[in-house]
Amino acid sequence: MDHNLYLEKIEEVIQSINYPDYPSELYAPIRYTLSNAGKRFRPVASMLACDLVNGDCNEALYPAVSLELLHNFTLIHDDIMDQAPLRRGKETVYRKWNTDIAILSGDTLFAMAYDFLIKTDPKMLPQILHAFNRIAIQICEGQQMDMNFEDSYDVSIEEYIEMIRLKTAVFFGGCMQIGAIIGDASQQQIDLLYDYGEKLGIAFQLQDDILDAFGSEKEVGKKKGGDIATNKKTFLYLKALEISDPETSGRLRHLFSVPAASEAEKIEEVLGIFEKLKVRTYAEEMIEQYYEAALTVLEKVQANQHKKEVFRNFGMRLMKRNK
Amino acid sequence: MDHNLYLEKIEEVIQSINYPDYPSELYAPIRYTLSNAGKRFRPVASMLACDLVNGDCNEALYPAVSLELLHNFTLIHDDIMDQAPLRRGKETVYRKWNTDIAILSGDTLFAMAYDFLIKTDPKMLPQILHAFNRIAIQICEGQQMDMNFEDSYDVSIEEYIEMIRLKTAVFFGGCMQIGAIIGDASQQQIDLLYDYGEKLGIAFQLQDDILDAFGSEKEVGKKKGGDIATNKKTFLYLKALEISDPETSGRLRHLFSVPAASEAEKIEEVLGIFEKLKVRTYAEEMIEQYYEAALTVLEKVQANQHKKEVFRNFGMRLMKRNK
Repeated sequence: MDHNLYLEKIEEVIQSINYPDYPSELYAPIRYTLSNAGKRFRPVASMLACDLVNGDCNEALYPAVSLELLHNFTLIHDDIMDQAPLRRGKETVYRKWNTDIAILSGDTLFAMAYDFLIKTDPKMLPQILHAFNRIAIQICEGQQMDMNFEDSYDVSIEEYIEMIRLKTAVFFGGCMQIGAIIGDASQQQIDLLYDYGEKLGIAFQLQDDILDAFGSEKEVGKKKGGDIATNKKTFLYLKALEISDPETSGRLRHLFSVPAASEAEKIEEVLGIFEKLKVRTYAEEMIEQYYEAALTVLEKVQANQHKKEVFRNFGMRLMKRNK
Repeated sequence: MDHNLYLEKIEEVIQSINYPDYPSELYAPIRYTLSNAGKRFRPVASMLACDLVNGDCNEALYPAVSLELLHNFTLIHDDIMDQAPLRRGKETVYRKWNTDIAILSGDTLFAMAYDFLIKTDPKMLPQILHAFNRIAIQICEGQQMDMNFEDSYDVSIEEYIEMIRLKTAVFFGGCMQIGAIIGDASQQQIDLLYDYGEKLGIAFQLQDDILDAFGSEKEVGKKKGGDIATNKKTFLYLKALEISDPETSGRLRHLFSVPAASEAEKIEEVLGIFEKLKVRTYAEEMIEQYYEAALTVLEKVQANQHKKEVFRNFGMRLMKRNK
């Protein structure tokens, strides 16, 4: 089966979730978040991985939905911490309601995510639950590193990559891993698929950094230059520091260490520096490296060529997304 | 086995949790929260229930720890929402660190709680996971109701009881339920134990309301009159409204609807009204009703008399706590 068919099945389950009427303050934000459909990359990845190892994809459907719910839970809480005004083009939960409601409806969604894990082959459940928890915990670790970086003067590109590995890439790896577990793959195949997903995830997050800085608001559904406004030390910033002359790097450090007098001006100035230094090109090279490394891992997975092709297409879709 | 032996085993597991060193901002608050030992009533209840139905308590130990971790997670997040300065006599996490760290370390603890569920008989896992999720979700529903009540003019005692049922009593019921599931009890026995725990839990929370208002800070480990300061519409307040003359009820409503000029004065005035109206006595009668109802349910559980005695002692310990 292909990407779109899985997407339909996942969407069908998500849209048919039955929310209690009461307390409405708790469930309205969950419905709002889940109905504002993202690209559902994570659950699709999980189902594709199950199919790749010749598993029964029906068994992978509900755990895949769990993964999407987990993702949406992290967005609700991250948006509080990052003080993000927009998500997928709409107001974030903590802005539309308030912080308390965002905390609590996020918690509820987190617990709901675990509920969908139950709907699979019970003999796989301990292993799936373990993998699922690893994702959840490492996302938190990555988010904490991300917040620490905001107050930190010195962050290396290596540390940055470790942060996005935890915050984003482990999730893609874990989705593939869970799909492969449900498909009853060998441990070696499971590990390879995890590795593929993790490498692809790093490439994906670097791409996301580029989009945040250079994409249009309409394309991205988030505030343009949001990372710059909130002093996020992304690859672009760290690379710029590394290759710029002392005056420029001093200026950049200054811009990223004080509250901006005018946010729009700050974003414009930083983007100007990024463009002059061509840091986007460096980022694209890095993306290419991780993407190629992911494909090399995929080569080692034993599966029929057609299914591998579907899998490669997924990677392309993930990376060349234009909406 | 008795209460204290279970307590020791639970404490041993909790104290031997191996926290990653990094990021320390994430794990220090978790260690801080878990090491500030509460009374561990919930996990003890779960192990006692397993023993009552002649289950193997070793199988119940790790899920019991899950339940304690779940409880501590809810405390970390609730303290943010309730703006509580103290918990068990120590600064709350969001005060000692900050709100972002409290959100994120709470999330991490929540995921860690699920990890301990895995360590039991795998064939029970789907049923345990389902029961565990029900607890988590209903706690959130109860907390949301609790927050709604703060802004609400009219709350009935019935609604209040439903709120504490969701926020507290379901947890005690769920602990007993999970213990009984692990002990491979019949569905009827499982349901009875759930019911016992739920009724006991309502009595316990009403007791907690009394302690919050009338207990000494040293006894309770929380700020005295914290519920009054934060306009919590507890049983005491609602009963006072019900039985007071129009002038007094008007005054109470006023005190609970505006920011206090002096918090200490407000608490003192409200306590004076509570005392004059003897609402504590009404609360104690209500507690007695639920406590007796719980004991009646316990009578129906098939178990040997000695074990039932241990179970009754647990209930007494829960209710007559003086520290």
